Amino acid sequence: MVAIDVRPVFYVIGNLLIIVAVAMLAPMVVDLAVGNSDWFVFGTASALTLFFGVLLVLTNWTPAKTLNLRQTFLLTTFAWIVVCTFGALPFIFAETRLDFTDAYFEAMSGLTTTGATVIVGLDRLAPGLLLWRSLLQWLGGLGIIAMGIAILPFLRVGGMQLFRAESSDRSDKVVPRASDLAVALGWIYLGLTIACTVLLTLSGMPTFDAVNHAMTAVSTAGFSTKDASVGHWDSAAVHWVLTVFMVIGALPFVRLISLARGDGRSLWRDSQVRWFLGFLAVISLAMGGWLSQTAEIAWHDALRLATFNIVSVVTTTGYASTDYGLWGPFAVGVFLILTVIGGCTGSTTGGIKVFRFEILFMVMRVQLIRLYSPHRMMPLTYGGKPVDNDIMVSVMAFGFAFVASILITFVILSAIGLDFLTAISGAATAIANVGPGLGPVIGPVGNFSSLPDSAKWVLSVAMLLGRLEFFTVLVLLNPKFWMR
Amino acid sequence: MVAIDVRPVFYVIGNLLIIVAVAMLAPMVVDLAVGNSDWFVFGTASALTLFFGVLLVLTNWTPAKTLNLRQTFLLTTFAWIVVCTFGALPFIFAETRLDFTDAYFEAMSGLTTTGATVIVGLDRLAPGLLLWRSLLQWLGGLGIIAMGIAILPFLRVGGMQLFRAESSDRSDKVVPRASDLAVALGWIYLGLTIACTVLLTLSGMPTFDAVNHAMTAVSTAGFSTKDASVGHWDSAAVHWVLTVFMVIGALPFVRLISLARGDGRSLWRDSQVRWFLGFLAVISLAMGGWLSQTAEIAWHDALRLATFNIVSVVTTTGYASTDYGLWGPFAVGVFLILTVIGGCTGSTTGGIKVFRFEILFMVMRVQLIRLYSPHRMMPLTYGGKPVDNDIMVSVMAFGFAFVASILITFVILSAIGLDFLTAISGAATAIANVGPGLGPVIGPVGNFSSLPDSAKWVLSVAMLLGRLEFFTVLVLLNPKFWMR
Repeated sequence: MVAIDVRPVFYVIGNLLIIVAVAMLAPMVVDLAVGNSDWFVFGTASALTLFFGVLLVLTNWTPAKTLNLRQTFLLTTFAWIVVCTFGALPFIFAETRLDFTDAYFEAMSGLTTTGATVIVGLDRLAPGLLLWRSLLQWLGGLGIIAMGIAILPFLRVGGMQLFRAESSDRSDKVVPRASDLAVALGWIYLGLTIACTVLLTLSGMPTFDAVNHAMTAVSTAGFSTKDASVGHWDSAAVHWVLTVFMVIGALPFVRLISLARGDGRSLWRDSQVRWFLGFLAVISLAMGGWLSQTAEIAWHDALRLATFNIVSVVTTTGYASTDYGLWGPFAVGVFLILTVIGGCTGSTTGGIKVFRFEILFMVMRVQLIRLYSPHRMMPLTYGGKPVDNDIMVSVMAFGFAFVASILITFVILSAIGLDFLTAISGAATAIANVGPGLGPVIGPVGNFSSLPDSAKWVLSVAMLLGRLEFFTVLVLLNPKFWMR
Repeated sequence: MVAIDVRPVFYVIGNLLIIVAVAMLAPMVVDLAVGNSDWFVFGTASALTLFFGVLLVLTNWTPAKTLNLRQTFLLTTFAWIVVCTFGALPFIFAETRLDFTDAYFEAMSGLTTTGATVIVGLDRLAPGLLLWRSLLQWLGGLGIIAMGIAILPFLRVGGMQLFRAESSDRSDKVVPRASDLAVALGWIYLGLTIACTVLLTLSGMPTFDAVNHAMTAVSTAGFSTKDASVGHWDSAAVHWVLTVFMVIGALPFVRLISLARGDGRSLWRDSQVRWFLGFLAVISLAMGGWLSQTAEIAWHDALRLATFNIVSVVTTTGYASTDYGLWGPFAVGVFLILTVIGGCTGSTTGGIKVFRFEILFMVMRVQLIRLYSPHRMMPLTYGGKPVDNDIMVSVMAFGFAFVASILITFVILSAIGLDFLTAISGAATAIANVGPGLGPVIGPVGNFSSLPDSAKWVLSVAMLLGRLEFFTVLVLLNPKFWMR
């Protein structure tokens, strides 16, 4: 007996579809402006999406406007799947003429801000489709931040309950109410995108490309308007501007809101931010030094190449400015590991994320001291909050789910017949929502189009699982979830 | 200021060296019997080892015969390093003429029951050296069981404190005293080795090879007397006998002692045993079915091939009866994952081990239920004992150390210049103490001899780290460990 009232869930999904329908008007207008016939596809897709959105809103109207725990789980997973389906429509009917598998993969890769693409020939693609890909990522990024701030901490997924108090604890309150938070978040996100666009234009990038890259940099998502990705622009200024905005997109947006409100210390007081920036600095300098030695590149070029590509992978963006797969086996090994690290919580990044590493290092430290001082009291705390058994279980379950998901995806991809490096890096890049894998097929200069359909579906599921931090999806597979 | 009384530590190590010296007499006698001049090397190495052993015993005699926590940590790590150094002597001076790097690698691979070898030309090697390799593994296996039963649970490493009560809790007492336990363990271990020798001889294996393979099967270690490993014998009987004894070697020896004392149910009541045997059965049947389909081998041959090689890898033995690397990318993926699983605690196996997976699955289950029933009480227990925060920290720290060690080893091996598959499988096989890796270099038909010296040292350290479950070694690196 299904005992969950799904009406509020469908009601919210209906509203999300209306937003998607409105977003589809942007590529329609752009294609109309350049006289490309795809404007009709976007217009029709928008109308269709609007129709279903309004239908869902009207048929599922209920007086109750708050969602309980189970409804929130349902909403989180189904919102992503449904929006993805409608978001795929333009890819099927516009000039790309993708089949449903490819279109769904592209839409899922977009909305989850992964950035893996099956479209070959971006350089010749009409502007509407390029803009639609960037918009999917931009909206997806906003959805992920909102989910990370407002939903996952309350679903207690993966230890995220540590960030629960941020919007309920009075002393640490950033903004008075949730709706104010959403508005502030929207403005910051939009402001960052505009700032990035302006700086990219000043760096010499054409305006249309600048808008698209700004949208996919701030959302740490990684779709480009060029087949050669950011490597298309041989401009140090472009690379550094994008590096900075990818890093900003990987920071906790709650802290960015505080910063915008004049509390400059809030950002730096967050241990995640210190660890994340410190880690990026150390690893970029080390890789830059190593690269300038081994590849005989000038020191400043090596640092730029290393920093851009490391930041791109660690922030789970997935732009490429060069084929770092050619830097040798050492670089390939390092990049494979960097793939799973991720940024700060409440940002647009995927991966394991910095705060879980902080908890793991704390656990390691406590273990190493307790081993020879078994009676010493060592309370586990994070950000001043106790790390109790409940949080330990959450973080441990997340870690296991993360590793197990990569390994299972890897085995399935191997069974489909992919080579070793493609299978393992494909699994990691999908689960961590990065984008490119390693090797000639799906590496930074490769493309996912040549993979068999089955592999594309496996990777689509992996992207969704990783994006929703596993348990949001897995909990729905438990029959007891559906019963009272 | 160093505040640890190291005399009891050196005293025990001295005693261990005396045992090693006595063991060296066996290959001496064998080489004397066949008239090989290496008998002199074994005699000299034995005398030298005996000299240092007696020296340590005499100079470090103290009235206190019990070791405290810090002394036990010191003993565990240093015993392995010192015994390894002396165990390497015959490889340097006998006909193999290995340099110190290779000799140390071979001895470490032997004593840790890993089974990776750098010696090419086993088929032509004198019996003394072959026997010495098997003896190192056989003694190493005994040491590992003793450590798993009597030391690690008290050091509280990796959640092993769950098995602490077994020798102190009256109700579950297997044998009255620790010394009785040691004697019982010795007899069972010896009895299993003899039984395996007899059955291998009956299956048609020459007696000398049978003795050696019995020693390296029961210790789930994997050195063979032939370059082609067990694949040298095209005999179903030989394969099945070895399969059975590898599985027995991976069971908890405390339960085997109970079984020998007439308590047949004790073994099956242990959830580790049920999970382990069930897992092996399912995965072997699946792989056998898959193999008979894809490789067009008769069903019973496919099942034997699959079971033997899966059992060999999962029990961390590392024999090969065929090059399973040629079974295709799916098999390669599966074998890479099987490499890290391991057997039961208190056995001769390495790897993550079954009980930690049981705890991980329990954590996953609890997490998935708690997500939608946050107020439900779900006490975590294992084998009737509560899994408290202390154990959670231990298991979590172990899991992180395990994954991090493999990844760090992988990156270092990549930096040395090994190819991707060699580097990742070499890291996994060393940390999990399995033996062969994957790929043409160090795969089941390969050999570690061609690796650069630096890679051999990295792998030697990795084998030790994995064998001592990381923290036993890591704790010594903390300066505070050495101070009062």
